[in-house]
Amino acid sequence: MSESFKRVVLAYSGGLDTSVILKWLQVTYGCEVVTFTADLGQGEEIEPARAKAELMGVKPEHIYIDDVREEFVRDFVFPMMRANARYEGDYLLGTSIARPLISKRLIEIAKEVGADAVAHGATGKGNDQVRFELSAYALNPDIKVIAPWREWDLTSRTALIDFAEKNQIPVPKDKRGESPFSTDANLLHTSSEGKVLENPWDETPDYVYSRTVNPEDAPDTPEYITVDFERGDGIALNGEAMSPATLLAALNDLGRKHGIGRLDLVENRFVGMKSRGMYETPGGEIYARAHRGIESITLDRGAAHLKDELMPKYAELIYNGFWFAPEREMLQAAIDHSQEKVSGTVRLKLYKGNASVVGRKSPNSLYSERHVTFEDDAGAYDQKDAAGFIKLNALRLKLLAKRDR
Amino acid sequence: MSESFKRVVLAYSGGLDTSVILKWLQVTYGCEVVTFTADLGQGEEIEPARAKAELMGVKPEHIYIDDVREEFVRDFVFPMMRANARYEGDYLLGTSIARPLISKRLIEIAKEVGADAVAHGATGKGNDQVRFELSAYALNPDIKVIAPWREWDLTSRTALIDFAEKNQIPVPKDKRGESPFSTDANLLHTSSEGKVLENPWDETPDYVYSRTVNPEDAPDTPEYITVDFERGDGIALNGEAMSPATLLAALNDLGRKHGIGRLDLVENRFVGMKSRGMYETPGGEIYARAHRGIESITLDRGAAHLKDELMPKYAELIYNGFWFAPEREMLQAAIDHSQEKVSGTVRLKLYKGNASVVGRKSPNSLYSERHVTFEDDAGAYDQKDAAGFIKLNALRLKLLAKRDR
Amino acid sequence: MSESFKRVVLAYSGGLDTSVILKWLQVTYGCEVVTFTADLGQGEEIEPARAKAELMGVKPEHIYIDDVREEFVRDFVFPMMRANARYEGDYLLGTSIARPLISKRLIEIAKEVGADAVAHGATGKGNDQVRFELSAYALNPDIKVIAPWREWDLTSRTALIDFAEKNQIPVPKDKRGESPFSTDANLLHTSSEGKVLENPWDETPDYVYSRTVNPEDAPDTPEYITVDFERGDGIALNGEAMSPATLLAALNDLGRKHGIGRLDLVENRFVGMKSRGMYETPGGEIYARAHRGIESITLDRGAAHLKDELMPKYAELIYNGFWFAPEREMLQAAIDHSQEKVSGTVRLKLYKGNASVVGRKSPNSLYSERHVTFEDDAGAYDQKDAAGFIKLNALRLKLLAKRDR
Amino acid sequence: MSESFKRVVLAYSGGLDTSVILKWLQVTYGCEVVTFTADLGQGEEIEPARAKAELMGVKPEHIYIDDVREEFVRDFVFPMMRANARYEGDYLLGTSIARPLISKRLIEIAKEVGADAVAHGATGKGNDQVRFELSAYALNPDIKVIAPWREWDLTSRTALIDFAEKNQIPVPKDKRGESPFSTDANLLHTSSEGKVLENPWDETPDYVYSRTVNPEDAPDTPEYITVDFERGDGIALNGEAMSPATLLAALNDLGRKHGIGRLDLVENRFVGMKSRGMYETPGGEIYARAHRGIESITLDRGAAHLKDELMPKYAELIYNGFWFAPEREMLQAAIDHSQEKVSGTVRLKLYKGNASVVGRKSPNSLYSERHVTFEDDAGAYDQKDAAGFIKLNALRLKLLAKRDR
Repeated sequence: MSESFKRVVLAYSGGLDTSVILKWLQVTYGCEVVTFTADLGQGEEIEPARAKAELMGVKPEHIYIDDVREEFVRDFVFPMMRANARYEGDYLLGTSIARPLISKRLIEIAKEVGADAVAHGATGKGNDQVRFELSAYALNPDIKVIAPWREWDLTSRTALIDFAEKNQIPVPKDKRGESPFSTDANLLHTSSEGKVLENPWDETPDYVYSRTVNPEDAPDTPEYITVDFERGDGIALNGEAMSPATLLAALNDLGRKHGIGRLDLVENRFVGMKSRGMYETPGGEIYARAHRGIESITLDRGAAHLKDELMPKYAELIYNGFWFAPEREMLQAAIDHSQEKVSGTVRLKLYKGNASVVGRKSPNSLYSERHVTFEDDAGAYDQKDAAGFIKLNALRLKLLAKRDR
Repeated sequence: MSESFKRVVLAYSGGLDTSVILKWLQVTYGCEVVTFTADLGQGEEIEPARAKAELMGVKPEHIYIDDVREEFVRDFVFPMMRANARYEGDYLLGTSIARPLISKRLIEIAKEVGADAVAHGATGKGNDQVRFELSAYALNPDIKVIAPWREWDLTSRTALIDFAEKNQIPVPKDKRGESPFSTDANLLHTSSEGKVLENPWDETPDYVYSRTVNPEDAPDTPEYITVDFERGDGIALNGEAMSPATLLAALNDLGRKHGIGRLDLVENRFVGMKSRGMYETPGGEIYARAHRGIESITLDRGAAHLKDELMPKYAELIYNGFWFAPEREMLQAAIDHSQEKVSGTVRLKLYKGNASVVGRKSPNSLYSERHVTFEDDAGAYDQKDAAGFIKLNALRLKLLAKRDR
Repeated sequence: MSESFKRVVLAYSGGLDTSVILKWLQVTYGCEVVTFTADLGQGEEIEPARAKAELMGVKPEHIYIDDVREEFVRDFVFPMMRANARYEGDYLLGTSIARPLISKRLIEIAKEVGADAVAHGATGKGNDQVRFELSAYALNPDIKVIAPWREWDLTSRTALIDFAEKNQIPVPKDKRGESPFSTDANLLHTSSEGKVLENPWDETPDYVYSRTVNPEDAPDTPEYITVDFERGDGIALNGEAMSPATLLAALNDLGRKHGIGRLDLVENRFVGMKSRGMYETPGGEIYARAHRGIESITLDRGAAHLKDELMPKYAELIYNGFWFAPEREMLQAAIDHSQEKVSGTVRLKLYKGNASVVGRKSPNSLYSERHVTFEDDAGAYDQKDAAGFIKLNALRLKLLAKRDR
Repeated sequence: MSESFKRVVLAYSGGLDTSVILKWLQVTYGCEVVTFTADLGQGEEIEPARAKAELMGVKPEHIYIDDVREEFVRDFVFPMMRANARYEGDYLLGTSIARPLISKRLIEIAKEVGADAVAHGATGKGNDQVRFELSAYALNPDIKVIAPWREWDLTSRTALIDFAEKNQIPVPKDKRGESPFSTDANLLHTSSEGKVLENPWDETPDYVYSRTVNPEDAPDTPEYITVDFERGDGIALNGEAMSPATLLAALNDLGRKHGIGRLDLVENRFVGMKSRGMYETPGGEIYARAHRGIESITLDRGAAHLKDELMPKYAELIYNGFWFAPEREMLQAAIDHSQEKVSGTVRLKLYKGNASVVGRKSPNSLYSERHVTFEDDAGAYDQKDAAGFIKLNALRLKLLAKRDR
């Protein structure tokens, strides 16, 4: 440990691992630790973190416990959803999108308390370390980041528990053995990886799922809902106006009930290896489909196709931790520009794992029944125009064919 | 009609509309008509087309009836599936991918019989006219294409039926009224559009679906299957080797039974307007998910992400009718290059509309449990490397932050 | 002529061709013609157009003669230059970028005078008809567009001159024979095509060039200049603040003198064929290089590379006439977002056809001598970080190599 | 030094720095060093490296001195040129493209001699370390790579020279002081960076240039040349058939004489900072322009535009060291597919820094004078087709405008 720190802001969950980190920072660096515990909608009480932090000597004024759910959905989840972002075709980026927000708060708090470093509990093999740190450095280039999992020698579960016990950190019974998998949760999703999921041929055991019922156990009758959008963002469920976080929470309830949003994926990590993860994004999956639904009648083809072309790169940037990079912001500027008229109502059918768009309407609809009808269109469209359209589109192909035959 | 034709090859289904076209070509141009009827797996008998054509005076040697199902799946569907192509995020391009094959045969037959033109039954408002004609011109730049729907005056259903009756073309009872929607079918999918689907807010009536049971009526117990791939293409179902068309047909049976592959979409046509379509792609949906599943463990990240970035353009090219364009072939060359090691087995769970990948294995797997494990990895991965990795990825962001604060 | 028009706004240059069109519109449609003549910096007097229009019976209040040079450079050329747009690698889009401005004014004037149509003098083989008309329709979907070259029978030079003479339109002597090539000019460039340029193997004769001296005749000593930028746009030459059009004009003078910006190109038209054109963009070429120069020290890599990836599509959109399409605006939003800090000074050396950036400086520079130096960098950069960076970038390649050997 | 090595293959130039490395490896690791010295066309004798290596105790059979010029141009430079690759709009990647070839030979030699590691002389701040190492790992995932500049303590010039003198390594007089800049050279280019170039505002002093005359000193009369291409690769100069390396060398002579291919650039390194470099690519610049010239008449628009869109990513991959990555190979497959008909002759004018295409012809030309002519085209093109083409391209813009007004 060649470096020394005076004061460190730790992303603190209150759980065993980050409690060990809290103590380890105090012991190793002799530094003052400031804790930040966020309610991102992970579904666990965050207040207990206060007592634990106090117990380990964190000053009351250095214990930050914030409810950031509205900020999370409004400023991170919704902007990302405007892009229809899915990493590697499927993953709705539930973990990735929460990290920059946590880093943002860590850096803000570091400024408030005059800390010279921030610390997080992500391991050295995963993506989260990258996401935390790129965001932190982008927001404060002079900040130091401590990643205990890359530094310490508590590399086995036994060593970690020994350290906890030696330092009077309570170890819950269920943490004594190896946990069968590790999870991350927030209002958008719960992810699980490791242990029982490590063989990608084995089906994910049902007990791994915590946010959704098994589709087999979901109701036998479909449920129809409507989601309203304004300028690309969800604003109401079944006609009832809701704040971003409230809307997502309500969709989560619906998704849970109908077994929607389960995903079993082998994905490519930014740090170079493949991993197998299990994701549950109940409300996010419904929302994502609804958003595409409202875009389908309000977005021009040119805008829609450009969005589709840009999406993989945009999703990759978020996955890799580049939320605060200029290129992500440039893409966001393009995407947001497209959403001005993305308003209206989408109707979906929820049934045993399926969230299907079955209707969409909008005051801004570009759908023109007159143009598309097989019936008399009152001159809206002159079919003869198609002949010229095809002829000129074909011209280069004809010239090629003449040459190459 | 300023042009005259000697002999015309018509894409002939044997149905009322193309029978009217057949007669109209004879009457209007005084030309000899050659018919081509393809079995693309649309699920209707094609032999009856022979008698009908003969009845209208087509010479027996000028009646072409071909089973092109294997060619269709092997040379068109599978190459497209290698790209994970979905137009506008969802549509599996079932109609689009069949058109170039039909044009290819029309042009081949035109050469055999010395025809100077080909004709098709697509309207002037849709994409199919473009697909037929771009393919035809790309394969024979001197061919003439006749698109009666853009030329004639039979623009109402009544006029068409009058013409049929005046010319002794049998009119089936159910064609007398306006049909509530129009359909296209082949081994990959059935599409429906028009009439009852024209209001995108109204849910598609259940009677529109013909290829899949309603998920509500699908079996209450999931079914597990395996699909084997070799070099990017499906080769076996549940361990039983199958030809391309046989495999797709078997997957169609499974998809039908489990209500898989229904899609209700408002899409952007190449000719400029939006249309609302209903698609059923039962086997294709299963196959597409299985293909992504096998890629997830056998494709390198760089290759996988490049494919994802290229896909929207590739899908657009097929949708717009540019199958035989050099840029589609270039993209195919890139995609095919990536598929050399895409071999192995995917296990899927089929249940009430869901086709979920639950396992994948491959002799070519790039998934390394050693690298990803939370346990001791025997030196496979040095977590300290991550520090340098992050530092250098962050450097430009730090320099930006230093400048901009 | 099945349609009839009451009042038509014509893009009128005052030259022979558009004078013939003016008359032809009056004769053919019996309509009132309103003329719009723009000073785009083409280097010809535009006032003479007034007398000619009056002579042909256009009402004085229906003669619009506008100096749009500042608007042209500020709202069209500069935004495009922010993107470093070059079509097919080289062409600076001088003609393409002027068309949307002309259409915009035509539509504005049509509204003012209550016209039901606009008309232009572009032929049916070129790109300009597309650019004029797409812009017109995007700004007023109900406007009618008349393109006489696609409609009339004055398809030979003789017929056109006959028509002129019959209608008392003065025919300049040098227009009596076939002109050896056709040109378009504005403040950004002069283009020439046709006739003596039609064989792409033949070198462009020197007399075709009108905006630049032959590099062989340019001064034997280099000239050094500086261009200042603010937020991505040029604001000063050699330290002297200038308006957009003034700056471009001054750069044109410099480029002319030093033989800069000549381009001989075979390009692909949107309407499907190749054409050979000769372009002179003296000031634009200098400006484009200067802009890249200032970006090189002020733009982050992520932003710069994203811009480079988006550029070809952006340039294609402008070339094809989609200036007023949503996808061009989306790309512009992304590009403009990147330009906030693109301020500073670029020094260039002009010499016999070359415009070379030789220096750049900026208060917003991201260039860090400390980071890049071979000397002691005082800890700015830890070379050991590179080891981890490379290891993790290599990991996927290693896993591939292990599998494939 | 926790690791130990038995035998190490060193990329050895014979110069002071790599001689120090040679010795340092022997001293530090007690390992046997195998040297590899490549003639890449850098313009220096490579045989002297043999005596130096022998002097330092390298076994004669462990001294590899290879002329790889033909392989370099044929298998690396030409494939890259097929893509028209330029990094950040300008840089022809002269250093980047040589590194994978060197790594390839290092790995081949390591296999032959049973070495367990390779070593290179690139610093920890630059791109070359990444390029060397990614290539090495991609070709042999078990190889160890030693990068002395990242490991040793010879971090100042003085320390390095001290080490040399202590170890009887001859130090040339001109290496005693700090060299004013560092260079890399091969048949494609010479690059210089560091020291006198470190302030990007200062013009590069003339003495930095070694491969080209100053344009001011170039001949006062232009020289015309022709370059012949076959399937995308250069095959002849002025009608005389030449091997790849011979052709490039001959173009270098021409470029040198006419002052062509100088580039002063601030670029973004993969490791995160900006650097200022000076490049001379005399023959490469001529070749690159010629290649675009022949493509302009032989490539279809669809293929050409796709190539332009893919190019920035392709160039970035090479710059970043991913030559042997699957995504580079996929892009190459696409690019190579496009080159089949890229054959013909380009004529260029070389004059004081300019290499301008002035003519191009090909048996595979897609340029059709008939289609493009202003004269009667004998029905090749029906101008009325353009009306329909525009109408349908405009349809979505009209629908947008109707909605948004």
